[in-house]
Amino acid sequence: MSYEIKGLKEECGVFGVWGHEAAARLTYFGLHSLQHRGQEGAGIVSNDAGSLHLYRNHGLLSQVFKDESTLDTLPGKAAIGHVRYATAGNHSLNNIQPFLFELSDAQIALAHNGNLTNATTLRKELEAQGTILHSNSDSEILMHLIQKSTQSDFLSKIKEALNTVKGAFAYLIMTNDCLYAALDPNGFRPLSIGRMSNGAYVVASETCALEVSGATFVCDVKPGQLVKIDDNGLTIDHFTEDTQYAICSMEFIYFARPDSNIAGINVHSARKKMGKILAQEAKKVEADMVIGVPNSSLSAASGYAEASGIPYEMGLVKNQYIARTFIQPTQELREQGVRMKLSAVRGVVEGKSVILVDDSIVRGTTSKRIVRLLKEAGAKEVHLRITSPPLKYPCFYGIDIQDSKELIAASHSVEEIRELVEADSLEFLSEDGLIKAIGLNLDAPYGGLCMAYFNGDYPTKLFDYQSVLEKRQK
Amino acid sequence: MSYEIKGLKEECGVFGVWGHEAAARLTYFGLHSLQHRGQEGAGIVSNDAGSLHLYRNHGLLSQVFKDESTLDTLPGKAAIGHVRYATAGNHSLNNIQPFLFELSDAQIALAHNGNLTNATTLRKELEAQGTILHSNSDSEILMHLIQKSTQSDFLSKIKEALNTVKGAFAYLIMTNDCLYAALDPNGFRPLSIGRMSNGAYVVASETCALEVSGATFVCDVKPGQLVKIDDNGLTIDHFTEDTQYAICSMEFIYFARPDSNIAGINVHSARKKMGKILAQEAKKVEADMVIGVPNSSLSAASGYAEASGIPYEMGLVKNQYIARTFIQPTQELREQGVRMKLSAVRGVVEGKSVILVDDSIVRGTTSKRIVRLLKEAGAKEVHLRITSPPLKYPCFYGIDIQDSKELIAASHSVEEIRELVEADSLEFLSEDGLIKAIGLNLDAPYGGLCMAYFNGDYPTKLFDYQSVLEKRQK
Amino acid sequence: MSYEIKGLKEECGVFGVWGHEAAARLTYFGLHSLQHRGQEGAGIVSNDAGSLHLYRNHGLLSQVFKDESTLDTLPGKAAIGHVRYATAGNHSLNNIQPFLFELSDAQIALAHNGNLTNATTLRKELEAQGTILHSNSDSEILMHLIQKSTQSDFLSKIKEALNTVKGAFAYLIMTNDCLYAALDPNGFRPLSIGRMSNGAYVVASETCALEVSGATFVCDVKPGQLVKIDDNGLTIDHFTEDTQYAICSMEFIYFARPDSNIAGINVHSARKKMGKILAQEAKKVEADMVIGVPNSSLSAASGYAEASGIPYEMGLVKNQYIARTFIQPTQELREQGVRMKLSAVRGVVEGKSVILVDDSIVRGTTSKRIVRLLKEAGAKEVHLRITSPPLKYPCFYGIDIQDSKELIAASHSVEEIRELVEADSLEFLSEDGLIKAIGLNLDAPYGGLCMAYFNGDYPTKLFDYQSVLEKRQK
Amino acid sequence: MSYEIKGLKEECGVFGVWGHEAAARLTYFGLHSLQHRGQEGAGIVSNDAGSLHLYRNHGLLSQVFKDESTLDTLPGKAAIGHVRYATAGNHSLNNIQPFLFELSDAQIALAHNGNLTNATTLRKELEAQGTILHSNSDSEILMHLIQKSTQSDFLSKIKEALNTVKGAFAYLIMTNDCLYAALDPNGFRPLSIGRMSNGAYVVASETCALEVSGATFVCDVKPGQLVKIDDNGLTIDHFTEDTQYAICSMEFIYFARPDSNIAGINVHSARKKMGKILAQEAKKVEADMVIGVPNSSLSAASGYAEASGIPYEMGLVKNQYIARTFIQPTQELREQGVRMKLSAVRGVVEGKSVILVDDSIVRGTTSKRIVRLLKEAGAKEVHLRITSPPLKYPCFYGIDIQDSKELIAASHSVEEIRELVEADSLEFLSEDGLIKAIGLNLDAPYGGLCMAYFNGDYPTKLFDYQSVLEKRQK
Repeated sequence: MSYEIKGLKEECGVFGVWGHEAAARLTYFGLHSLQHRGQEGAGIVSNDAGSLHLYRNHGLLSQVFKDESTLDTLPGKAAIGHVRYATAGNHSLNNIQPFLFELSDAQIALAHNGNLTNATTLRKELEAQGTILHSNSDSEILMHLIQKSTQSDFLSKIKEALNTVKGAFAYLIMTNDCLYAALDPNGFRPLSIGRMSNGAYVVASETCALEVSGATFVCDVKPGQLVKIDDNGLTIDHFTEDTQYAICSMEFIYFARPDSNIAGINVHSARKKMGKILAQEAKKVEADMVIGVPNSSLSAASGYAEASGIPYEMGLVKNQYIARTFIQPTQELREQGVRMKLSAVRGVVEGKSVILVDDSIVRGTTSKRIVRLLKEAGAKEVHLRITSPPLKYPCFYGIDIQDSKELIAASHSVEEIRELVEADSLEFLSEDGLIKAIGLNLDAPYGGLCMAYFNGDYPTKLFDYQSVLEKRQK
Repeated sequence: MSYEIKGLKEECGVFGVWGHEAAARLTYFGLHSLQHRGQEGAGIVSNDAGSLHLYRNHGLLSQVFKDESTLDTLPGKAAIGHVRYATAGNHSLNNIQPFLFELSDAQIALAHNGNLTNATTLRKELEAQGTILHSNSDSEILMHLIQKSTQSDFLSKIKEALNTVKGAFAYLIMTNDCLYAALDPNGFRPLSIGRMSNGAYVVASETCALEVSGATFVCDVKPGQLVKIDDNGLTIDHFTEDTQYAICSMEFIYFARPDSNIAGINVHSARKKMGKILAQEAKKVEADMVIGVPNSSLSAASGYAEASGIPYEMGLVKNQYIARTFIQPTQELREQGVRMKLSAVRGVVEGKSVILVDDSIVRGTTSKRIVRLLKEAGAKEVHLRITSPPLKYPCFYGIDIQDSKELIAASHSVEEIRELVEADSLEFLSEDGLIKAIGLNLDAPYGGLCMAYFNGDYPTKLFDYQSVLEKRQK
Repeated sequence: MSYEIKGLKEECGVFGVWGHEAAARLTYFGLHSLQHRGQEGAGIVSNDAGSLHLYRNHGLLSQVFKDESTLDTLPGKAAIGHVRYATAGNHSLNNIQPFLFELSDAQIALAHNGNLTNATTLRKELEAQGTILHSNSDSEILMHLIQKSTQSDFLSKIKEALNTVKGAFAYLIMTNDCLYAALDPNGFRPLSIGRMSNGAYVVASETCALEVSGATFVCDVKPGQLVKIDDNGLTIDHFTEDTQYAICSMEFIYFARPDSNIAGINVHSARKKMGKILAQEAKKVEADMVIGVPNSSLSAASGYAEASGIPYEMGLVKNQYIARTFIQPTQELREQGVRMKLSAVRGVVEGKSVILVDDSIVRGTTSKRIVRLLKEAGAKEVHLRITSPPLKYPCFYGIDIQDSKELIAASHSVEEIRELVEADSLEFLSEDGLIKAIGLNLDAPYGGLCMAYFNGDYPTKLFDYQSVLEKRQK
Repeated sequence: MSYEIKGLKEECGVFGVWGHEAAARLTYFGLHSLQHRGQEGAGIVSNDAGSLHLYRNHGLLSQVFKDESTLDTLPGKAAIGHVRYATAGNHSLNNIQPFLFELSDAQIALAHNGNLTNATTLRKELEAQGTILHSNSDSEILMHLIQKSTQSDFLSKIKEALNTVKGAFAYLIMTNDCLYAALDPNGFRPLSIGRMSNGAYVVASETCALEVSGATFVCDVKPGQLVKIDDNGLTIDHFTEDTQYAICSMEFIYFARPDSNIAGINVHSARKKMGKILAQEAKKVEADMVIGVPNSSLSAASGYAEASGIPYEMGLVKNQYIARTFIQPTQELREQGVRMKLSAVRGVVEGKSVILVDDSIVRGTTSKRIVRLLKEAGAKEVHLRITSPPLKYPCFYGIDIQDSKELIAASHSVEEIRELVEADSLEFLSEDGLIKAIGLNLDAPYGGLCMAYFNGDYPTKLFDYQSVLEKRQK
């Protein structure tokens, strides 16, 4: 469902293209299809015959590039772009990516999706050497590591730097004559490569952006790989061989767009299967209809309906227009503000017993609000079905909940949560059910998924975050 | 589906409230839920203890009221608002509603949804009497008729004026101490009244706006009625008894939000039923899945799937973010621009035979584009199913196609259309199927629906448009 | 000096051109030179081969036309423009001129400088006939009178309307094929005609705008004249012969730009002469320097210095950049806000006895502030010399002080004012001295000047304002 | 005169305050009075109890801080601000000052007026050590030198860095608990300290900003000094004793505001004296009046008039409103564009012989344009008098002409220039006359002035610019 309402936010989407006349426009199209990955800032760096140009600003892509003339200031046949979700209080333009570093004899642009786990340590080490970072963003640390590297050639410098940073990262780096793409050794975040009919290469956080830009899927960037794209074409290299898949399961559950494939698995189909398996696992109830929370749970709801034989209905409507819900002075107005975004369909649910399918419960406040919406619209019973296991552990790989106090399931039983969200019954998908529904089957724990959110089994050392986690566990 | 793509646009949505402390904010919420009825301009007039204040501007509601401080300039316990679709080339701010007329001893605000059929004639008559209209909009004519009326009291003046204008109209009129709502004798456009828990009354183009504002449905404004709301409550009066229902069938087919009820019929349920009946009427085909064109055809597609027993899948994804598709220099970029808004899900449709459900075909260009999107994404067969009869006749009651040249079905057979849109088969819902699916059953032709779009049976005299129609028929 | 500080504001400047390829740009240039006549709104209507186009907005010309593309939306070989000072609380865009009236078969644009004295009466009469005005501005009344006129041809309609409105007016009216300029029977406001080398005609509120646009002065529009300019050239006609000059003396004293000529008299030279005559009339004092309040009193100060033999120095500096002085929370900050605009030159005035020349005293607050600025900067003595007689009576002809309570000289003696403004001495120019300095010598009272501000001798009947005046006199 | 017209631009003005509740507002006031020193960007960093906040943007101060709410985002009792003139093509926000550097354990803000002569060398050295600069501006180099310094305490780090940079600099540096001000060893640019009645200290590029902020002048920052201001008050220290005054003479001639004092000399008085001495040095001509080019030459013109006994008149009027002169398509429109800014007063100069006083001739194009304006307005003769010696050598200390090709006097004789600018006679002030008029009398060459512009005698080694100069001399 809508990320603002949910309270879970992932950091960023990236897009790059090399070899197309209208590189910045293609990047604009591609970023638009990745807009769900970050709504608080966007930017594009284009490469015009070796000269790099940057435009970035706060807001949605449509606000950042509201004047076509802005796109025209980004000429050239290559470009990288970024959409960003900004952590609170950090509204400096300097934090919006791509970053463009200006050296006397070179320009280098950088875009990053993910979260480093040793950024604080690295930042302090760099400052002790006299470096002044340009932003509050950990994303730029890689660039300083490259610049400080004593390796002899640029490729070796990048590799050294990529081995120094830890955690989750999908990087795009554009120099005056080359585009690099790199993925961390666990492949937490998706990153795919496509090819256009004119031979141009496209790299993007999700395959939906390849489709939008008219590119054909070539391959995913794999954990530990460093891909180089220039006028000679594509070269696949690696910066480490010490890799093991741990793809973020939340990408499948709700981050990614349903039309994307991750590691070959279509996201809509995985979600529909989550719904089907949940229908099989869950206690049967007499209900008149299955409804999904739009938009992210509609696939799962249709799967649930199919498997249960209960009709699939549209009991909730999400307003397709984005509006600002100003801070409202009264409780009544705040509730109406919620209904601006999502409303229950009285004509459908009145007097009916409803199975409500949602993808996850974070704090529980959203679920409570939706259950209430349905009951105010006359629903007799609301049976809540969640297509993921309970979220109990913080994420340090790019999802913005690093404190498990915010996670209701970290401290409440399923029955307690049910009571809190005022549902008539509540069931979660099992961990096994989730793994089976996604069906990755990679040679790694959990078939190649990161399940730390649900079971605390972090696939990497946590570095700076180790103490955070330990504090929690006391 | 998205109106920009479709090319059919309705003129406007209206919302009014009387008796609530935060009237302008409520109107903002209400208009937001009516945003699908007009995206090119919006405005609110508030009534602060008899003093009227206006703010209006071009663009979406979120752009017009992007600063909360703008709402704060609209104090008072009553307000009316309007969202507008502007006809090309008429970008003056003066044309954005509500209109606020300043007289020496009174202020009067006016908002209009619909289209008059004798506006040109009335405008000329008024000018001959020395009147200078303030805008290019026909909507303001009513106000001049009121002001010119020789009736003794304001209510009689309004009634006289309402009997002078012809065609489709849902008016909100706010004076310093009163709010009026009036509906044309055929009730072409919906207009409903709700009541809030504090006693405030709300009037809106669709019941979804009542829900959003937290009001309970009271009644629809009926054809020929003139409703008055002031501090003494609600008074239902009428300006004519010569009425006959002819509710625009397009409201059910795709204009209205699925969570709205029109004349007691839920729009989602009607659409689902259109899908079901169409599945029964249409020739059976072997297909792997049913997909709907988002968002307006999803209800119908799920109905089609249920009735046919073929699985319902998400084969098309609409980008939930609105982006500007600048005029693109090449055909390739234009096609990518289309995919920015709507994309086919390769992982779902590749190698499959697909039943594609859409609500209507206007020019055919959109259908062709969607069929192509699906085939480019690997769909083996695309069987197009339309949940309305072929559109053959222009509308003069508020839908912006007044020239049947733009309607492909006015000059092409079903088979010719199928060939043009490159579908493997094509079926339309029958007129009877449509009437049955909606199920109005009012004591009027076609159960109370206007079917002129499909069969040319206009429920009123056409006045200024008679010649337009006659020209066409030659 | 700066009008915001002074508190006296005149309503508007007008500019028109007929017959030049770049009519809107010329109008932009011309209006810029008239910007001192109105800073709160500006607009241009262009005439492109009979089709009229309007752009207008709040703010300075540089804000209204900050994008060159806006000027490009105003094509054509003729244009009229307006700069406006808006009365408080009336910030509707509708009040910004030129007005553009859209009739079914014609477009008419109107721009007005001045103030009608019978507007309230006329507005009520029009409304009683069913007319709804478009704005709060009295300026549009003329257009409705034209439209209502029963005269047979347009020229006769205009003449009838011009004889119905009373007070001060300089009108520009542009139709699809013609530009009219009209001046009230007393010629309160200046209006001059120029001719460009290509034959184009220019009409402007001040001759400085003729110079800026590269036109050569042809003649002033005279009281009661109605001038017509079209592709056949210039035709001078009149709507009344009952005229008598009463040119606003304030135009000479401080409204007009020093490089303008009014009725053949250069404004800078007139001001310098006011300074000279005041130096002769005033009691001699031992002083080290003469300083003028920038910018409007610099001419007079240099005249005073020349006549008195005392050196002319720059003891006050006006910041050439316009800044917003936000409402400041403390008295200290408010004083600094004043100094942002005008500051005393300590290095010049410290320890010195200063003759301070200013053009007028309205409320006295500005004079007091400037005297204080100088004393805080170390001036030993400040002898204030005003190059106009005391302002005692309200103006109803376009200067925005209609209440004599705001005029300190209406209720205080010169000695009382001196004490209030904390000057060491204070002298005003005599009425005869003013008339002599300007030197109009027209065949009318006061040589053709309106002196009502100083002596209450209004040159016309006051109509709506008679009661205002009478109340005051009680 | 207006700097845009002239083509000479100085880089920047700085303002700082420590110890005042409304520090950002005071800085806004102060910067406004320094706006003439830079119109292309502005910023403020405030210090709220140790926490630094930045806002900066392109444009005039009134545009950058057009919303009062922006000032409200800058709380605290200390602040530094900067107004900037940006060199062409370098429109990144990153180049607008103050710079705010974010370290893990500290924030440091920096503002710079001047130009370093060894910046290119230093930049390359820093990059070789792995440093990535944040901007194209040389101003940030100091900060990296501080950060890289191996000195043990911050004060020693700053001193070391200040001894590493060469050329012209007035720096303000604000840390979390302290404000530093430093001036280069030659004192090229002015920098003065004031004290407010509440004990707050103010530092500013010109004393006019002290006056505006209500501070009393305390002392100038002297060459080689490093001043520290914190809650304990003012401490005057120095980073070098190897100093020698070489104050930029152009500050007196036209950069500084006439109400500022530089090294105790009032700028208006110095200019008036330049005019007087020039009147004595120049060949006498029969002329009707002396006129100055507004605004910078009015003081000199009044001095010339006094010394020559010829009346001082206002023969040129500068429009007090700033307008954009868009690129105009025709020569005629371009000329009108010039007149928008400056116009000749026909009523004053027609038929007259005029002495025109201006402060300098750079390319000669402006002088030619003004002479033409006067002649087109009817002036019989125009005798041009320049209150500075011919400009023959480039400046490397902060004035934006580094190529003597742009200086007409570098390659033309006085008679050749006279002919080019179409004046009837032309005289320049002598070097000795200029030194005498300013009257600094410091114990240094030329009484403490930098006269390199006129005679090539640069007071420092030129480092990176040595080759630039040598190329020129071939």
